[in-house]
Order: sequence, then structure tokens, then C-alpha cells
Amino acid sequence: MTLRFGLLGAGRIGKVHAKAISADAGATLVAVADAMAPAAQAISAQYGCEVRTVDAILASADIDAVVICTPTDTHADLIEQFTNAGKAVFCEKPIDLSLDRVKACLAVVRANKGTLMVGFNRRFDPHFMAVRAEIDKGSIGDVEMVTITSRDPGAPPVDYIKRSGGIFRDMTIHDFDMARFLLGEEITEVAAMAAVLIDPAIGEAGDSDSVQVMLKTATGKMALISNSRRATYGYDQRIEVHGSKGVVSAENQRPVSIEVANGLGYTRPPLHDFFMTRYTEAYAAEIAAFIASVSAKTAAAPSGEDGLTALALAEAALKSVAEGRSVKMSEIL
Amino acid sequence: MTLRFGLLGAGRIGKVHAKAISADAGATLVAVADAMAPAAQAISAQYGCEVRTVDAILASADIDAVVICTPTDTHADLIEQFTNAGKAVFCEKPIDLSLDRVKACLAVVRANKGTLMVGFNRRFDPHFMAVRAEIDKGSIGDVEMVTITSRDPGAPPVDYIKRSGGIFRDMTIHDFDMARFLLGEEITEVAAMAAVLIDPAIGEAGDSDSVQVMLKTATGKMALISNSRRATYGYDQRIEVHGSKGVVSAENQRPVSIEVANGLGYTRPPLHDFFMTRYTEAYAAEIAAFIASVSAKTAAAPSGEDGLTALALAEAALKSVAEGRSVKMSEIL
Amino acid sequence: MTLRFGLLGAGRIGKVHAKAISADAGATLVAVADAMAPAAQAISAQYGCEVRTVDAILASADIDAVVICTPTDTHADLIEQFTNAGKAVFCEKPIDLSLDRVKACLAVVRANKGTLMVGFNRRFDPHFMAVRAEIDKGSIGDVEMVTITSRDPGAPPVDYIKRSGGIFRDMTIHDFDMARFLLGEEITEVAAMAAVLIDPAIGEAGDSDSVQVMLKTATGKMALISNSRRATYGYDQRIEVHGSKGVVSAENQRPVSIEVANGLGYTRPPLHDFFMTRYTEAYAAEIAAFIASVSAKTAAAPSGEDGLTALALAEAALKSVAEGRSVKMSEIL
Amino acid sequence: MTLRFGLLGAGRIGKVHAKAISADAGATLVAVADAMAPAAQAISAQYGCEVRTVDAILASADIDAVVICTPTDTHADLIEQFTNAGKAVFCEKPIDLSLDRVKACLAVVRANKGTLMVGFNRRFDPHFMAVRAEIDKGSIGDVEMVTITSRDPGAPPVDYIKRSGGIFRDMTIHDFDMARFLLGEEITEVAAMAAVLIDPAIGEAGDSDSVQVMLKTATGKMALISNSRRATYGYDQRIEVHGSKGVVSAENQRPVSIEVANGLGYTRPPLHDFFMTRYTEAYAAEIAAFIASVSAKTAAAPSGEDGLTALALAEAALKSVAEGRSVKMSEIL
Repeated sequence: MTLRFGLLGAGRIGKVHAKAISADAGATLVAVADAMAPAAQAISAQYGCEVRTVDAILASADIDAVVICTPTDTHADLIEQFTNAGKAVFCEKPIDLSLDRVKACLAVVRANKGTLMVGFNRRFDPHFMAVRAEIDKGSIGDVEMVTITSRDPGAPPVDYIKRSGGIFRDMTIHDFDMARFLLGEEITEVAAMAAVLIDPAIGEAGDSDSVQVMLKTATGKMALISNSRRATYGYDQRIEVHGSKGVVSAENQRPVSIEVANGLGYTRPPLHDFFMTRYTEAYAAEIAAFIASVSAKTAAAPSGEDGLTALALAEAALKSVAEGRSVKMSEIL
Repeated sequence: MTLRFGLLGAGRIGKVHAKAISADAGATLVAVADAMAPAAQAISAQYGCEVRTVDAILASADIDAVVICTPTDTHADLIEQFTNAGKAVFCEKPIDLSLDRVKACLAVVRANKGTLMVGFNRRFDPHFMAVRAEIDKGSIGDVEMVTITSRDPGAPPVDYIKRSGGIFRDMTIHDFDMARFLLGEEITEVAAMAAVLIDPAIGEAGDSDSVQVMLKTATGKMALISNSRRATYGYDQRIEVHGSKGVVSAENQRPVSIEVANGLGYTRPPLHDFFMTRYTEAYAAEIAAFIASVSAKTAAAPSGEDGLTALALAEAALKSVAEGRSVKMSEIL
Repeated sequence: MTLRFGLLGAGRIGKVHAKAISADAGATLVAVADAMAPAAQAISAQYGCEVRTVDAILASADIDAVVICTPTDTHADLIEQFTNAGKAVFCEKPIDLSLDRVKACLAVVRANKGTLMVGFNRRFDPHFMAVRAEIDKGSIGDVEMVTITSRDPGAPPVDYIKRSGGIFRDMTIHDFDMARFLLGEEITEVAAMAAVLIDPAIGEAGDSDSVQVMLKTATGKMALISNSRRATYGYDQRIEVHGSKGVVSAENQRPVSIEVANGLGYTRPPLHDFFMTRYTEAYAAEIAAFIASVSAKTAAAPSGEDGLTALALAEAALKSVAEGRSVKMSEIL
Repeated sequence: MTLRFGLLGAGRIGKVHAKAISADAGATLVAVADAMAPAAQAISAQYGCEVRTVDAILASADIDAVVICTPTDTHADLIEQFTNAGKAVFCEKPIDLSLDRVKACLAVVRANKGTLMVGFNRRFDPHFMAVRAEIDKGSIGDVEMVTITSRDPGAPPVDYIKRSGGIFRDMTIHDFDMARFLLGEEITEVAAMAAVLIDPAIGEAGDSDSVQVMLKTATGKMALISNSRRATYGYDQRIEVHGSKGVVSAENQRPVSIEVANGLGYTRPPLHDFFMTRYTEAYAAEIAAFIASVSAKTAAAPSGEDGLTALALAEAALKSVAEGRSVKMSEIL
């Protein structure tokens, strides 16, 4: 069986998914929709799929699944409509910036007995998957403490920041999901600190550009997250998991691994400078996992509930900063 | 001029200092005192110094400076007595486990116009000094975020734990001092989480074995500390300082830097398994710095006030854990 | 313009090239030929091209270029026929195991004013290309000494060894080409040593399994090559170029870059265990370079002459081992 | 028992040994001799030993052993005199630049039943010792191929070069000894290439500044050596041993292990820039080994014969360069 796809949104990330779908032997890209006709036509031309409207895709009998890459404020509505139409749905994170809207949307998905996978692509990075595999096979014993470092090469435009829901919902949300993925237990407590160290305009927009977070589970496992919107040396993405028998870590990735040495020292090139080059393999593996789980009728993961929980952790972090205290997750969800 | 030393305490750390003093061209080890006669005699035999009582050393005209390596509960009294006697004092950390006692002791030192240096040896580690030197010369621009990882190879005996003042005062205190050393600004806010993950007996003794801490300064600079009493792979001691122009880090140290590769992968040996082998160079450099500052009549650093502040940060961390909130340093000092 | 391709040979490496051609926007895979019908059909099915005979492809007006992946002993004949037919030719190394046959073939190519590129894929590895780019931009000054380490995960079957022309022509030939690529000057002198250390059957087949080679140019630049047919830790492929101002090196590649530490030490996974996974990007970049040079009507490199010179270096190495002396390249070519 | 030492030669390396002897609990530095009175007096002042003439030390009943750090052309005579006087002798390499003179000297040592250890300090480097220990415990199976990289930060003065015996006898000699130490078998065949790439004045002095060597044993084990008198990035000293079950390597050493990352990449500091800082631990361990073997009356290693063999390998390399062929060691010794 070949899974027949509709692609909703033909922007930057839409192109990434179009390529992944086309390259997967288990899938066909049947149609693409985008409010901007040239964007949709470009994908149509490159991958030989049709351009249709979102409504036409919703009504298409030859579409089994959709990938939602439209603006965030359309995600929840589209998830509801397409699961209602019996299509399997892969949706870019976040489902919505409002916790209540996400809860309502997931209720509809459940009522529709729908399939929903949320795009936490980092779970599919081969290096992070290998870290998780080591945990699963017991290499480090019981997980005790996790450290996640995540720094962007540079801050996005302030206009983006204003619509983003803030750094916890926009950027740290990936790290919240990764912490859950690695801790293997639900987080029960969140404490966060935030500052504006890079650009005062970010502060004026009501957001922070540098944050750090502590997480804890009911049994006392803990995690640290360090985030900055600035990293001159590239896209800094590291995880480290300390357990009762050892530690496992994933190091940064760079486009080429050479080293030049001279009187100034030994220099390796900067890291990837863009999330798309850093996570190329992860994006392909993510769509492959969606295709595989839909084809095998197994539960797609990360699920809508994973998306909800990560967003709730962001809410808790915001509350922690605002109130200068640890926030229990039971206060949020 | 040669600085003439008395050594108070001939235990494990006393031996380290005896060796450092003897090897330093600017110093002579004149006498050693210890409640255990054989310990003092061993140092006397190895370095050719006299065995005297503490009182005799206090009264000795041929002693310019003392190194205090006796049990913690004697530190403050000895500092007061020896600064009163006009001797320069180097004291192992902590000055005392009670903030009030430390404050009182420092008041006496000030009244005596005494010289007091506190043994935060890690400031003298060549790798950490090199990190600080990079900061000072502007390699990373303005410091923004610090991450300190500090894990002990194994937990000390529970008897030690009970007298230690707890993990924040005993172990994290080094990291508090290091955070101050690297941030270059006073810390104004502390949030901490703590757990018992390694040994329930540590919990029964009222202590934790795994902690994480967030720190913040008035201008928003931040630091993270991750501590565990267990690291199967050795003595894990890393720092990383992220600034506006880049990042500088110091990696772990191992006794030999070889690598063996076979079908199981590429394996480098474990780290140093003991603080004394890890910080051999730091201990020597620390005493050399004390000798140099006493000889040059410059202010000895880290000072008694540095010792006080690190202890106050430990108090704040304890309070944060107890009350589930961020603690302002203005509440403590 | 789109370059229309015929693929000659649908085996392991043929599949790699079929994928690369299909993925390149500047090319179309029109037809495939293979003596084994199922192999050709598999590629036909996967990439939507026709199955034709070699003769039919030779006669096809809708074929601009061919990729030759057939057995070695057919290479030279096919190169002659297809350049005579006006097709651009990419041929897997080697052109032939006989130096005289290669010379004759290249004479035909020149008479045909044909386009011929030889498959020294390693020149297109992004890491090795980055090394070369550093040399070209002067990062290390004048090149002085090159070290190439190349070890296979395991020896091929003795049957393959017998047809391979021996380790120098089969394996070291890549390193000879790489040495020329990095030295930037013709090699004038070769000395080699060879041994059978892994499998006596390789010795009985008249070949060696472990060799080392020294090379020198007219101006005194030098290179070392170390080869083994066995590397338990994976496919060991490193280069290091020492120059007047510094050194540049490319390290080994592994599928995932994680590290697990415990009481036994710090372990990273083994390297890639297969040339196809190690050089995935190189194979794609190689075909892209061929397409680009044919499209732009620029000289394709590495050229037939590069193939000839690498083979001559292998001859010289064999002669050096046989005669226990340095061999001048003027004795060979 | 304490071994009582006389030090012959108070220059740069003499000071290193004086420090090592003084710090060793099993030894006492009794006397020092040097043609330059101030040099001897400096050591006398620092370590509290007497200044005597060489002849006086030879006649001293309170001297058990001597360390010879005088100019090379005095070594053989002093070895003969002091072993004849019943003193244990540690002599800096080389014993002499003439193979015949070394042979004659060793005959005298044997006749005297003397104790002679030669200063191949690198055998005592903790990292290289750890490599050897891995070999000895079977971690890599049977040794197959060794690669030794050895580059000096800068060329010595041409005046030194002229007296040095040439790069093979002066510099590569350490690598010849290391190759023997790691191969665990006698070398039977040598091929070398040499060039002047750094300074024409070195060529005018009849020497080379860049060389590479291949070695082979009777069973086919092989080694490569790469030497240069120039390495802008510091003192480059690496070894790698490939065996039937894996590979073991020792990496370069630097004074501090920090890393600074910014838009230009990730930079670690240069290596040690001087053999004395690079091999500090090795020099101390070397003297300790001499003291231990004399005290235990076990054979001192590396022995005079090790010194002879390394020199013979240098002769073979020179002959190989001169005659453009592999040289059998049976032609030399």
C-alpha cells in the first residue's frame, strides 16, 4: 500500500516534507495547497503533484493523509476538519498557542478516532535516537539527570517573535519534548529563569532571549535546559543523560569535520547554521515514521498529547518566571 | 624573602599543601601540628620540618603564615587566633558551616587587619584559569550564560555526609564560587532542586545526592549547576561560558589520553577518579598564589568574603528547595 | 538542458549512480543495461527508465552520456565505443588493469575528442574537498607532507582478490589519486613495502593485505600511505596535509556521533562499516560534477589521464616491492 | 637504600635530571660537574649538592651512579670510565654518532659488567606507556602496523645541525626506538626519503629537514615515520598502532585543554611548544626507572644495545636515501 498525501502549506518547511514524502517508497505526494499560488506551483512542478485548494484536498478520495505546514493559527481547525474527514494528520508544532484550544482540538481528534502526529522532529535525529537507544538498552542504568543545550545561531525578526507565543512556546518547547523523551517519566515540577541579554527589542515585545529551566519528575529525576537566541558558532544542539551506570551524550554536528592547525591553535569549522541543514535526516525520518505508523495502524508518536504536554510545560515555565517559584504541573494540566 | 610556614593539620589535604610549600622557592615549611602524632611525624620526616603544637606555632616567631587543614569546626577559631597573632592565614573551605559564625570570624579578621585566603582550589586549575583568561581578554564578548557540571566519582560515607553541612555547603559550594568567578557579577537570585537518587541513606541523613541550581545576577546573566554524588566514569568537572561573541569551555581531564578502537567502538580511558589527582596542579598553584600575595602584600583571593558569599549561596539553595521558590540573595546576606 | 543518461551495469555501484542521476535536476536516467535482466529491471522499476541492451544504448539518439559500472575487463572497450559514438562517458575505476590497454584506450578517446571522467569518488567527499579547499586558499602555506590512512573493514573474498589486480591496483589506487590531488604536483618516485598479515590465502593468491608506500615529487614534497585490508573498528579513511604554515586534516566518519561513558571509559561507536555508507555524499557529488562539466562543456576531472597515472603509481609500487628499491615514475610512464 | 648520584653536565637537560633525582625518594644528588662553573654552581645552590670535577666524581666513594648530560662527543669515553669505576651509568642519547665507536664502548661496558641505560625518554611518557600497556594486555591483538608522527616546532640553529649527525641520528632516532618499542620485533629492513623543504641552509649543511621512513620486521610487521623540523602548531608527537583486533593511539598534548568557539569555528590552543614541557613527566619517570632498576639490580632499559640499534637504523635510513633502495639491517649491524 502506498500512502497518498496532501500537503497543506508550501513554505520552507512544506518543501522539506514534500521532498521527504516523494523520496519515501511507501508514499506518494498527490496534491499541494497554499494560499500563495507560486509556492504551490513550485512544489507541483518539482514533484509532479497537483495543486488543489485545502477544501478540495479535504474532499479528495485519493488523499489518505495530510501534512499541515500552514500558519500556526490554522493548525487546530485543520486538524479537526481532516481527522473528521478520516484523513491521517501530521501537523507541525505547535497545535496552537492556547492550551485550551489544544485541549479542545484533541477532544475532537479523539471523538473522530483520528490519527494525529505532531512534528517534534528532534526525536528523529539519528544522534538523539541513538542516545535514546542506549538508554533503552540499559547502557547507563536508570536515568537520573538530563542536560539539554539548545542555542539558535541568531534571533528571529521581532515580528516573528511577537506572533511566536514567546521563547518557551516557540523554542524551548522542543527541549521540553526532548526532556520528556529522555527522562521516560512525566515532569511534575518546573522552575525557570529568563532574561533579555541579546536584543532589547525582544524585551519590548514582551519576550526573553535567554532562558534556563529546571524540571523534575515525581521520582526525583531532573533535567536542565539552557537556551539562547544567539550562538555565533552555529546551531548548538546537545543532550547529555546521566544515569546510575554512566552517561550518554550527543555532540554537535557540523557540515564538514576537518581541522586546521597553526600557531593560533587547532580550529574546526563552525556548526550547521540553520535548523534545516542540522536536522535534514530527522525531517526525513519523521515523515517515514508517520508513514510507517499510519500504514501499520499503530499509534503515531509524538502524539497530540505530547504536543499538549510540551505546551503545558511552556506555560509552567512562564508562570515560574512570573511568580518566582517552582510550578507544579498539576497547576497547569 | 622566604615565607615561613606552619601547617595545621597533617591529613590528606595537609600533605598536599606540605608538598606544595616545600616545592615553592618562596616558602619554607618550618613546623607541622596535628592531634595525631604519627601524621605530623610523617610530614616532619618527609619535608624536614619540626613537629610543634598548634599553640607553639601560634607563639612561634619563626612562623609568618599558616595553612589550616584541621576539621571544619576548628577553622573559625584558628583564623581568629592566628590573624590576631599577625600570621597570614590560608584556610581550607569552608570557614564554618554557620553563616553567622563566618560573619563573626570575618569581623575579627578585619579588626586584626589580617590576611585570609580561602581554599577554593578550582580557581587555580590551569584549564579553568585559561577559561577565565579568555573571558578577560574578550574572546567571548560579554558573559551571558554559564553551565557548570560537577559530579563526584562516588558518594562519601554517610558519617561524612552527616557532618558535611549537606551537599550544597559541601560540594556545590565549589560551583557557587566558580559561577561567581566566571560571571563577574554578584548573584542576586537562586533556585534549586534536589533529590535522593543514589542512596536512601543519604536521604535519611537529611541530605540530597543529586541537585541542580539556577543562578541569576542583577543584569540577567545566568548560570546552571548540575551536581551528582555519582559518576561511574570518573570525576566529572566541566565548565562552559556562553557570551555575546562566542563560547569558551574546559573539558574533563584524564590521566592518559589514549584511545583504543575495535568492533565495539572507540574508547578513551575514564577520567581522574579522585579530586587530588584531578586538581594536583591547582593545589600547587593555589599555595603559590597565597605565597605571592603575602610576599607582595596584595589582597589574597579568594578572600574570606568569597568564602562567606559561597556559603550564603548554599543557604539560598537550601531555602529554595525547602520553599519551592526562587530566593533573593538579599534575603540571606 | 537535461543530460540524458544510459546506465551500463545495474549492480551495487550501478544502483548508487542510478539514484544520484535520478535525484539530479540536471539529468534524466533514460535507460539501463545489464547482462542480468532482473538487475536492470529493478532499476527500471524504481526509477522509471527503460531496459535496453548495451548496443541499443550505443545507438540511442536520446542518450547523451553513459555511466559504466560493468566488470573491469569491459571498461576500455566500452569507453572506446561510446566516445566514438559521441557520448560523454563516466567510467568506474580502473579503466583497465593493464597500463598499455589504458594508454591505447586514452589514445582512442583523444582521437574521438571524447569526454571521459574516471570514478575516483573520494575527491568528492565533502570532508576531503574541504581539506583541498583549505590548501587552495593558503591556510597551510606550501604543501610539504601528506599522510593518508586507508583501511578496509575486512578483506574481500579471495576470488575477488584474484581478479582485482592486487591491492595496489585495487585499493591503494584511490590513495595514489588522493595523494596527487593533495600534493598538487606530479609524483616522481615511489617506494613501497608489502606483507601478508591477515590471511595466508591472500598471499597464496599472489597478493598482499597490508602495505605502506612513500611518494615524492620533483620538488621534494612527500606522502605516506598506510593500507590494511582489516580494521575491526570500521572503514578507516583519514588524510592529513602538513604545510609550511600549518596542517589540515580530515577525520573519520561514523553513522552517529554519540558517546557513552562508564567505568570502562568513554566510548564512541565504530566507524561506517561500508564504503557506500561512508561515501554516500561523495557518490552523489561525483555524478553532479560529471553532469555539470558535460553540461558546461568543461574538462571532466578526474580525467582518463588521472586514471592512467594512478595505475602507473600502482605499477611502480609493485616494482618497488619486487626489487626492494625506489622506483622513478619515468621508468613506468 | 638511597642511590647517590653524580651529575655530569649542568646544561638544559642536566637541570631536568637534577630536579628528577632530587624529587625521587630513592635517590640523592651528591655532586655536579660542568666545564662552566656557574652552571654547576646554580644546580649546587638549588639542590644542595657539591660541585666537583668529573675526575673527582669518578674517584668518589660516595657516588653510586652518574647521569651523563655532557656534549655527545664525550659520552662514550665517560661511559667507559664510569662503568670501569663501578658506577651505574645513565647516558643521554646518543652514545656516539659513530656506530663503530658505540660498538667499542658497549664492549667495554660488557667487559666491565657495567650498568648502562640510554635516555630514550619517550618510552616513559605516560601516554605512550599506556599505548604499550594496551598492546601488552592484548587489546589490539597482534601488532601489524605502526605510524609515528614526530614534528618539531622549529628547526634548531644550523650550527647545531652541523654537529648533530643529521636528522636521522638526531631526531628520527627517537622514533626508531619507539618503533622498536611498539613493534616488539627487530626491524630487518629500512627505506627512507628525505628532502629540504624548510630551510636551504639545512641542505647546505648536508642535512634534510623533512623525512619519511618505512620499517619492516622479519614477520612482515611494518612501521611508518613522518618527521619535519617545522610544525607551526607546536610539538607534534603521535603514535598509532594497528593490530589484528583493533588500534590504539596516543594523541597530542597541550598545556591547557580549553576550546573557544565563535563565527570562525571551534579553536583549541596549540600544542606544547618545547620538548621539555611536553615530556616533563617522561623525564621524571625515566630517572625513576633507572633508580629502580639499579636499586633492584635488574637490567636497565632502554639499554646500550637499544641505543646501538636505534643508531644503526639511522645509518640504514641514510644509506637508503643515498642509494634509493631498501636497506637490510644485516648490511649495517
